[in-house]
Amino acid sequence: MASTIALLTDFGTQDTYVGVMKAVMLGINPAAQFIDLTHEIRPQNVRQAALVLLNTYRYCPPGTVFLTVVDPSVGGARKPIAVRAGDYSFVAPDNGLLSYVLDELPEKHIVELTNSAYRLPTVSHTFHGRDVFAPAAAHLAAGVPLESLGTIQANYAKQMLPMTNVTEKAIIGQVLYSDHFGNLITSIGTFEWMDDEQLQLTPRFKKNLAPVIIQADQVTITAGSVILKGIHRTYSTGKLGEPLALVDSNGFLEIAINQGHAANRLNLPMTTQVIIQIG
Amino acid sequence: MASTIALLTDFGTQDTYVGVMKAVMLGINPAAQFIDLTHEIRPQNVRQAALVLLNTYRYCPPGTVFLTVVDPSVGGARKPIAVRAGDYSFVAPDNGLLSYVLDELPEKHIVELTNSAYRLPTVSHTFHGRDVFAPAAAHLAAGVPLESLGTIQANYAKQMLPMTNVTEKAIIGQVLYSDHFGNLITSIGTFEWMDDEQLQLTPRFKKNLAPVIIQADQVTITAGSVILKGIHRTYSTGKLGEPLALVDSNGFLEIAINQGHAANRLNLPMTTQVIIQIG
Amino acid sequence: MASTIALLTDFGTQDTYVGVMKAVMLGINPAAQFIDLTHEIRPQNVRQAALVLLNTYRYCPPGTVFLTVVDPSVGGARKPIAVRAGDYSFVAPDNGLLSYVLDELPEKHIVELTNSAYRLPTVSHTFHGRDVFAPAAAHLAAGVPLESLGTIQANYAKQMLPMTNVTEKAIIGQVLYSDHFGNLITSIGTFEWMDDEQLQLTPRFKKNLAPVIIQADQVTITAGSVILKGIHRTYSTGKLGEPLALVDSNGFLEIAINQGHAANRLNLPMTTQVIIQIG
Repeated sequence: MASTIALLTDFGTQDTYVGVMKAVMLGINPAAQFIDLTHEIRPQNVRQAALVLLNTYRYCPPGTVFLTVVDPSVGGARKPIAVRAGDYSFVAPDNGLLSYVLDELPEKHIVELTNSAYRLPTVSHTFHGRDVFAPAAAHLAAGVPLESLGTIQANYAKQMLPMTNVTEKAIIGQVLYSDHFGNLITSIGTFEWMDDEQLQLTPRFKKNLAPVIIQADQVTITAGSVILKGIHRTYSTGKLGEPLALVDSNGFLEIAINQGHAANRLNLPMTTQVIIQIG
Repeated sequence: MASTIALLTDFGTQDTYVGVMKAVMLGINPAAQFIDLTHEIRPQNVRQAALVLLNTYRYCPPGTVFLTVVDPSVGGARKPIAVRAGDYSFVAPDNGLLSYVLDELPEKHIVELTNSAYRLPTVSHTFHGRDVFAPAAAHLAAGVPLESLGTIQANYAKQMLPMTNVTEKAIIGQVLYSDHFGNLITSIGTFEWMDDEQLQLTPRFKKNLAPVIIQADQVTITAGSVILKGIHRTYSTGKLGEPLALVDSNGFLEIAINQGHAANRLNLPMTTQVIIQIG
Repeated sequence: MASTIALLTDFGTQDTYVGVMKAVMLGINPAAQFIDLTHEIRPQNVRQAALVLLNTYRYCPPGTVFLTVVDPSVGGARKPIAVRAGDYSFVAPDNGLLSYVLDELPEKHIVELTNSAYRLPTVSHTFHGRDVFAPAAAHLAAGVPLESLGTIQANYAKQMLPMTNVTEKAIIGQVLYSDHFGNLITSIGTFEWMDDEQLQLTPRFKKNLAPVIIQADQVTITAGSVILKGIHRTYSTGKLGEPLALVDSNGFLEIAINQGHAANRLNLPMTTQVIIQIG
C-alpha cells in the first residue's frame, strides 16, 4: 500500500530535526515514503507555509498525509491537530497553516491530537514535530482512523492572505518572497493564459470578486521604482539581464530577470506594493 | 525486510558526495531505505558528529545501520571500522566519532573493514565514503554478517566530551554549536524535568558524578556578557525578542530567543564558557 | 522491480521545485525510488551539470533513469528529449547537458518529448521540470518504452569542455568550481595512479591525444599566484593549513588545503588557468 507522507517545515536541513522525524515515522510505519516539499520556510513564517502548501498539495498522490510544522508557539497554547479533507490528510499546529488549503477542500474532519497512544512516550516542551506530529502522520499513513487520534473539534484557525485588491483601473498586491533563482513572487493570482494575448485573473481569497480578463501586453506593472510593460509568457522572451513580469508556475505574478537574480538586483523588499495598471 | 541506513556526514548537499554514496548503496542493496540525519556537521568536526549521533540514534528503528563519515584523515592512518552494539550497527572511520554512542550501548563487536570483497573494485585516496564505507553499510543492511567485513579488533578510538563540571555552587560547560534557528546548544546535560519546577541533571560522560536536582527558577546562567534568570520550559514563556535559557529536546541546556535568532544577536562564540549558579 | 530515478538540477532545496517533481513522479509511478545527485548546480550552468553527470552516472544502478534539468531556455526553443544509451536513460532539455555522458555511452536512442499523454494535462511556460520532464522520467522508470514518449530524432546538442591542452612540457587547463569543503576542482583529467609515484593522464574530450605518464613528485603546478610542488595522494600528506595538489575521487586535478578551505584562502576565481609543468 502506498503510504506517502509529504513534509513541509521551517526546520532547515542543517540540523537533525527532519531526519529524526523521519526516523520516528519509519519506526512506526516502515512502508512510509517521504516527499520533502521544503524545509526552508522562513523561520516561523506561518503565512508563507500556508501559501506554499496551497500551491503544492495538488501535485501529491491522493491519500498523501501532509506533515506541516511551522510552529512559533510550540509548547504554548495552540493545539496540535489532524484534518482529513478531500483526498488528503494534514497534521499541523492549529495556527492558520492549513487555512488556505482547507479553504478549497470539501468535507473537513478535524481532531485535536489528544490520544497519548499515538505520541512518543515522552513529549518534550520544544520539539512536538518529533514527539507529537510525526507519530500522528505515521499512524495516519499506516491506516489508523483519524478519529482515533484524539477529540473531534468543529473548527480550525484561519488567517487571511494579504489582499489582492481589484479596482476598475488596477490590481494591487505585494511582494511575498524570493525563490532560489531570485525570482520575486507576488500575492497577485491566480492567472491563467486564455490564448497568447489574454490572461484571466481569478482573485484568490476574495470570493465575491468576479474573474478579470486583461490584455497581457497592455498592462503596466509598478513595484517600488521598477516599472515593467506587459506580462511575458516565458523568461526567454525578456531581454538578457533585464527585469520582466511573468506568471509563475502556480499562476501568481512574478518579477524576474532573464538569466539573472532579481532579488539581488532590484531593490524590492518583501511586502513592497505591486500595482498592475489595467485601464 | 526493512533495511534502513541512517547517514550522518559533513559532506554538505551542494556536491554529489551524498548522492553518489546512495547510488552505490542502492546498487548493492536495492531495498535500502535512507534517513539523512544531517550532512551539515561542520567540516571535520568529529566531536560535533559524535554528539549528534548520540542524540539521534535512539529514534531510529532497531536494526538501523548508521553510515557516519566525518573523516579529516581520509587516506591516512585511521582505520575504517564497523561495529555492532545493542540493536544497531555503525560504519565509520575509527577516529572517535562512535565513542559517545558506544559508551552507552552493550555488547560491542568491532571489525576493521579489510575485506576487499565488500568495497568498490577501485578505492580512491580521497573518498572512502563512496568506496569503502557506503558499500560496507549497504552489505550490512542486506544481511551480510559483520564478521565477514574484515578483521575482528578489540577496541575503538575514544574521545571525551568537553567537561560538564559540577561543583557545590555551579555547573560549568560551554557553547557547542548553533542550530538552524540560531539556538545555542551547550554541553551541559542531560536534564530531565521532574515536575513544573524541578530539574534533574545527570552529568554526561562523568560516570562517578551523582545526579543533581535544581530549582529551575532559582538558578542564574552566565555566558559571556549574557546573564539569564531561571530555566524555562518552552520558548513561548520567554518575552518576545529576549534571550532565555531552556532545556532542548535532547536534554541539553540551550540559550535561545523567543521568535528570534540567538546566534546572530548574542555575542557568544563556540566554546564560550557557560555557568549555571545553583547555590 | 527496481525503479530508480536520479535527479540532477539547479533548483536548490529552498523552494518546492524538487519536492513537487517527486510528488508528480510518485503519482505516476508509486515504486519510484529517488537519488538526489545534487540540486545545487550553479543556476543555469549547463557545463557544470554536464561534468557532474559524467562523474556520477556510473555509480548508479543499471536501469537508472536520470532526470537532469538545468534549463536556462525553459519555454524557449530548445527541445525536451529523452535518451536511452548503454544501461541508462536520460531525460533533459536538449541544450548540451547530456553531451559528455553520451560521448562515452554506446547505442544512443533519442526522442523529442512530444507525446502529450506523458505530460501533465496543463504545461506551464516556466516549469517544464514538473510538467514535462518529471512525468517522462516517471513513465520511463515504470517501463513505458522510450519510443512512446515522442518523435525519434537523430541527434542531440553537443558542447565541449574547456580544453585540457597537452604540450611536450606542460598540461594546461582551468579551475572549474569549488566544492562544499572549498576544494578547487580543475578541468585537468582523467588521472589514474599507476603506482606510488607515477600518474597516467588520459586527456578527456580530446580523442586523438595519447595518454601521458608523469612522475607525481617531479611536476610543478601553477595557478594564479599559487605554485605547488608535486601531486599528493591524500590530503593528510600535505602540511596542515598549506595548499596542495591532488587527484580527486573522479580523477581530476584538485587544489586543496589539508583541513582548510582552499576557495576562501587562495585567490583563484573560476576559469583561472592551471598549468602542470612536466618538462
